[in-house]
Amino acid sequence: MDGTKPQEVDVVGVGNAIVDVITQATDEFLVEQKMTKNSMTLIDEKRAHDLYATMGPGIESSGGSTANTMAGIASFGGTSSYIGKVADDQLGRVFAHDMRASGVNYEVPASKGGPATARCLILVTPDANRTMNTYLGVSSQLAPDDVVPETVESGRVVFCEGYLWDVESAKQSIRKAMAVARAAGRKSALALSDTFCVDRHHQEFRELVRGPVDILFANRAELASLYETDDLDIAVAKVQSEVELGCITLGEEGSLLVTPDGVLAVEAEEISAVIDTTGAGDQYAAGVLYGVAKGFDLARCGYLGSLAAAEVIGHVGARPIQSLKELADLA
Amino acid sequence: MDGTKPQEVDVVGVGNAIVDVITQATDEFLVEQKMTKNSMTLIDEKRAHDLYATMGPGIESSGGSTANTMAGIASFGGTSSYIGKVADDQLGRVFAHDMRASGVNYEVPASKGGPATARCLILVTPDANRTMNTYLGVSSQLAPDDVVPETVESGRVVFCEGYLWDVESAKQSIRKAMAVARAAGRKSALALSDTFCVDRHHQEFRELVRGPVDILFANRAELASLYETDDLDIAVAKVQSEVELGCITLGEEGSLLVTPDGVLAVEAEEISAVIDTTGAGDQYAAGVLYGVAKGFDLARCGYLGSLAAAEVIGHVGARPIQSLKELADLA
Repeated sequence: MDGTKPQEVDVVGVGNAIVDVITQATDEFLVEQKMTKNSMTLIDEKRAHDLYATMGPGIESSGGSTANTMAGIASFGGTSSYIGKVADDQLGRVFAHDMRASGVNYEVPASKGGPATARCLILVTPDANRTMNTYLGVSSQLAPDDVVPETVESGRVVFCEGYLWDVESAKQSIRKAMAVARAAGRKSALALSDTFCVDRHHQEFRELVRGPVDILFANRAELASLYETDDLDIAVAKVQSEVELGCITLGEEGSLLVTPDGVLAVEAEEISAVIDTTGAGDQYAAGVLYGVAKGFDLARCGYLGSLAAAEVIGHVGARPIQSLKELADLA
Repeated sequence: MDGTKPQEVDVVGVGNAIVDVITQATDEFLVEQKMTKNSMTLIDEKRAHDLYATMGPGIESSGGSTANTMAGIASFGGTSSYIGKVADDQLGRVFAHDMRASGVNYEVPASKGGPATARCLILVTPDANRTMNTYLGVSSQLAPDDVVPETVESGRVVFCEGYLWDVESAKQSIRKAMAVARAAGRKSALALSDTFCVDRHHQEFRELVRGPVDILFANRAELASLYETDDLDIAVAKVQSEVELGCITLGEEGSLLVTPDGVLAVEAEEISAVIDTTGAGDQYAAGVLYGVAKGFDLARCGYLGSLAAAEVIGHVGARPIQSLKELADLA
């Protein structure tokens, strides 16, 4: 390895770099605002401004689906790099600080003079569900040139979020990342991210999953959207025929790890009180991908996914507060 | 009352407008950084930058001692106004949003072109103590002109934080606020804020307490600094002779409400797990001041103080998440 080549890392993530603004809200507020509970809606700057003005006091916490996963991998003691775009503003500096302070390599330069750093206004209802409203800002300017081949090649797995598919240049960034990974003999992983996101890009996601994707993350509803069936068995069979590893999350019922050889059911970790489900899927992916990168057996990969998801739903915010490494060592 | 005069509110607060950046830290980190645990240190912009670069990932949450108290009063269903200065930047907009979304009147215009909005880097150790490092930024430009007499006169009580005493123009702002309050027949309250703050301005605080202050908030250590005695009884006797109401917090031992007529011991509320003591004193003050403004008896004022303090130490962040009104109604 020459001096300029990045050191090998467990996972490289590509995603929308977002700061979360989290507030508590009632179900009535969601109805008034015509929101679909537990989903993600893209909003423009004006709507972001208007919604922010009507919502309660918030806490700001770095987020972004893939960025959360990379922070989770670092929390397990793994190594990760992140590709996503922030602006040269206060929230952009917060995002970059939190990535690096979490132990994630993050070298994408901040963008100057354009839109602001992306924000996701997250309303957490008393049932701990989160309803997300994302102003993409500068994160949507992620372009193929930001996907530096050496960075992608340095990861045992490259992980992309379906959310990126909403913007053409970001979509091309995913395609490039997965092509680079394949050429380098690396694995490509995709999270479907959101039911509506799958609906918006149904045919392209089908092709992507059949094509470059080796590892797929989806919850039951996203899988139903992808394969246009409510029959989980039929969907699982499709997954088996299309990817090396399918990771299907089922909420409190745990998850299924699907390979061409069979289906492994993984239990959810018990938790005394679910406070905020934001980041549950992201941290599940962190546990599984950390395990895959380390070559652990499937059962351990699934267990680490459940462990990380349980940690993050026990508090407000989408990234682990406790060290996932310590939790895993304890167990 | 004419149309331009503000409506009467329970409490008007004057303080440093600050956004908190809260992270978990070890005791070893505090030692390495030469910090005095559980105290507040003023830092310059360079130190803020350097410390931020070395500390862990944070969450951002609007803070500022008096601002926290005003948010607490609103959470009780009371009315409050706030005087403090932010910049016209992202964190300034976060601060202003959170004040208004909490129900606090906040009309001080954001400052353009000067220093950034103040930040307090808060390190929470595993024992739930908080150690604070404040970059005052634009908040230190609070000047007597910002203390609009009509706003101060509109409050039954004006409440100021000792932290303001670190900057000359802010100090003059306190003096003006208290003079306006006195002339209007209103009460003036002061929180001593921090032992080191008391040490820095010992003589002036003595004069202030003997002079315009009607209601004093202090913890045991701050009181010991003010009166230069470790004997609580001696200090209490001093308080009795100098103010109408002294509110002395004793941590898990509760608090003392001291009047010229006697001393009332108030129990702390029990709580299952103390997570982060940031804001405990601020919320105690919210409960007591809300009660005082409403004319409640002393025992109830103290009880509301304990209730609010217990809420805020049960989670990360310095402002209540649960409605204090609902908690008080339940009890």
